[in-house]
Amino acid sequence: MDHDEQLKNICEGRATAAPAELCCYSGDGSQIKGRPDYVVFPKTAGEVSQILAYANKHLIPVTARGSGTGLAGGAVPVKGGILLDMSQMNQIISIDINDIQVTVEPGIVSDKLNEALKPYGFFFPPDPGSAATCTIGGQIANNASGMRCVKYGTMKNYVLDLEVVLADGTVIHTGSNCLKSSSGYDLSRLFVGSEGTLGIITKAVLRIAPLPKARKMIMISFPSPENAGLSVSRVFAAGVTPSACEILDKTSVSVLAKLDPDVILPRDGDVVLFEVDGSKTTTGESAELLAKACEDISSSILITDDPVKMKEIWDARRLLGAAVSKLDPTKTRIYVGEDLGVPIQKLPAMISKVYEITNDAGLTPMIYGHAGDGTVHVGLFIDVLDEKEWEKIHNTADRLHLAAIELGGTVSSEHGIGAARGMYLEKQCGPAFDVMKAIKKTFDPNGILNPGKLGM
Amino acid sequence: MDHDEQLKNICEGRATAAPAELCCYSGDGSQIKGRPDYVVFPKTAGEVSQILAYANKHLIPVTARGSGTGLAGGAVPVKGGILLDMSQMNQIISIDINDIQVTVEPGIVSDKLNEALKPYGFFFPPDPGSAATCTIGGQIANNASGMRCVKYGTMKNYVLDLEVVLADGTVIHTGSNCLKSSSGYDLSRLFVGSEGTLGIITKAVLRIAPLPKARKMIMISFPSPENAGLSVSRVFAAGVTPSACEILDKTSVSVLAKLDPDVILPRDGDVVLFEVDGSKTTTGESAELLAKACEDISSSILITDDPVKMKEIWDARRLLGAAVSKLDPTKTRIYVGEDLGVPIQKLPAMISKVYEITNDAGLTPMIYGHAGDGTVHVGLFIDVLDEKEWEKIHNTADRLHLAAIELGGTVSSEHGIGAARGMYLEKQCGPAFDVMKAIKKTFDPNGILNPGKLGM
Repeated sequence: MDHDEQLKNICEGRATAAPAELCCYSGDGSQIKGRPDYVVFPKTAGEVSQILAYANKHLIPVTARGSGTGLAGGAVPVKGGILLDMSQMNQIISIDINDIQVTVEPGIVSDKLNEALKPYGFFFPPDPGSAATCTIGGQIANNASGMRCVKYGTMKNYVLDLEVVLADGTVIHTGSNCLKSSSGYDLSRLFVGSEGTLGIITKAVLRIAPLPKARKMIMISFPSPENAGLSVSRVFAAGVTPSACEILDKTSVSVLAKLDPDVILPRDGDVVLFEVDGSKTTTGESAELLAKACEDISSSILITDDPVKMKEIWDARRLLGAAVSKLDPTKTRIYVGEDLGVPIQKLPAMISKVYEITNDAGLTPMIYGHAGDGTVHVGLFIDVLDEKEWEKIHNTADRLHLAAIELGGTVSSEHGIGAARGMYLEKQCGPAFDVMKAIKKTFDPNGILNPGKLGM
Repeated sequence: MDHDEQLKNICEGRATAAPAELCCYSGDGSQIKGRPDYVVFPKTAGEVSQILAYANKHLIPVTARGSGTGLAGGAVPVKGGILLDMSQMNQIISIDINDIQVTVEPGIVSDKLNEALKPYGFFFPPDPGSAATCTIGGQIANNASGMRCVKYGTMKNYVLDLEVVLADGTVIHTGSNCLKSSSGYDLSRLFVGSEGTLGIITKAVLRIAPLPKARKMIMISFPSPENAGLSVSRVFAAGVTPSACEILDKTSVSVLAKLDPDVILPRDGDVVLFEVDGSKTTTGESAELLAKACEDISSSILITDDPVKMKEIWDARRLLGAAVSKLDPTKTRIYVGEDLGVPIQKLPAMISKVYEITNDAGLTPMIYGHAGDGTVHVGLFIDVLDEKEWEKIHNTADRLHLAAIELGGTVSSEHGIGAARGMYLEKQCGPAFDVMKAIKKTFDPNGILNPGKLGM
């Protein structure tokens, strides 16, 4: 019996090797490509366990995929083999408000989890831009966190326990339903951000948080993007922890204004969208403090708590990554060098560096991102039919990555390393990279789990 | 040249093998004992690196020690060898408010760090009961977190980067000064709670938080400890995240009342001390919501924002662990079975179980702890001159640990496993324990780092 038949046997027919199907699983949101040899749709940890045991014996690569919204090729099977489409494991197993936690399967879509939590007055805070389609499993695998983690923390802070299938098919639990434990190594957090290279997540216990009663948005424009960057440390030093803190340079603002001409964003400079949440009174107090901290370096300050207007702006902000083509329909946004991160004080320097490097290449960047975490998303767009533009954009991305490392930063703040940024990990991590390689070898001696990722 | 001379050479004389000195390093706050062969006082990562390279070559065990306040023997050299007294590496290297972080050496005492941060309006939230004497290095090694982590999170959430010396003397950085990163395995969090078994921490970059403007305490008494346990999930379900949530059973209350007869605690039952923080208005709102959520299951509710009274209560609460001898001066508090943790909903069941088990043994327990995290500290006290009492207390601790595991809990919520609880880790973690052992082997193939801990 060949592999295809075996996989079908394990998953009661939920497997395919049809070329048309395989094609659909050959990419994600990045430029990385790679076709699987088989696509399997597991429904239980038991099936995943059998698949891994089989793959480990026959040395077949295994790559897990949620919704394929990743931006670094993490879910792309660059060495072929088995693609595990986790989307059929998409149930909410339990909502335990009294334990402040939920138990879910990895294929649940992020927004769907939040819809289910809303009636209880709770939410799951990590909110990547792709929350409408991305899966929790993908979020865990990439530590994908989004806008509100400046206040609420990243995925790492929310994972209490994972059911994980190891390379040889062993099923383990990395933690427990306890909110706190000091009992041995924290395997849960080792798996968060491990991009499917250490094991396959089949269940997750996640902490949740009470929904805030009120929100207020403070839109501040600045005469320069460097000043906008500076505002972030000003606000923190003033003792305000905003629930969002998004930088939008002039280019980003004009893209948003094209998307919706009535959007209430200031048009007189580079903008930081701050949000504060809490009670009605606290948000008022925080908004005032925040505005005061930025007064002398800003051009204008606009405060609103109109939920409709706020939703419009956040919805537009979430679409920004893809919407840049509105600026010039002949160009396409290419996701390379898009996820830089630096210590907050280095934000102005990083922003200057982005302009310098893109200017050298004759590219116009769109700069946005979660400034409160030091995340600088760089939007680059080119005419994809022009070979030279491709060379230009790849060179630019390379220089951006090296510049971030030079500033003590990271080549990926929240999108992951995947196959797109593996070559920078050794430079960024130094001798710690050898430790990572040793951990990988311990978990996956045959190298079947998502090979070709994390520079390994 | 013998080991003693070599160690003196590496550390410019800061090493000793004098029996009187060695004796001082043979215990901690637990019942675990073990004498080192050498005590060394390193001052730099370079020295630690040389010591580890030497120890690794000659297969000499190495155990790091902060202030020795641990309650599981983590810092006790049960296999002899080298004891690294880290207390001379106690500098605050930098306070970077604009980056919301500090860089410290591991020997800095927790409260000293907070004193230094106070003028900036910031603090380091994790606050174990021993904060006046324990070191940050020890807190990291044990994930020791304390009262406020119910709102602010545990040590894991605050460690951005560690400088760590590995078994062979290699110095690595586990993270960076960035607040967020998705770049390879999270080594920082792997070291938090690793109890010196994977490497020696020589520097730490820690996130800090703005000090809240106001605090309010809500003291609620309940007709039974089970009701007190129940109040915790009631409060969370009402959408209030308290900044502290400490349970004190009747015995604990009477100990506190003996310590200070004027203490304003309610005397009519088992008590939960809730604290809320934020602005003056929010704390008012939260206190009301909280009181309302507990109204129908409580005996009395007392609210105060008098800072003097609140400080008195918290100071007394911090001393509670040791102060139990006030109840009966012929008895001594013994720290065994003292750090149970369960999912919040299991608190009432765990509390009942503690009474059942201690009652079987004829012991009176004092139950207190960070109920908001599911932490149940059990205070047991015996006549230490009575052999039979020792047998009784050890049997009781064993039953308590097994009961916590039975309820899906943990044998250590925040004190660590050390040598005191190693025998339970396999039962608690299942096959994940094999993964932990494999990680240990990868980091420390010769087994020189704190041998005899974590059940390995």
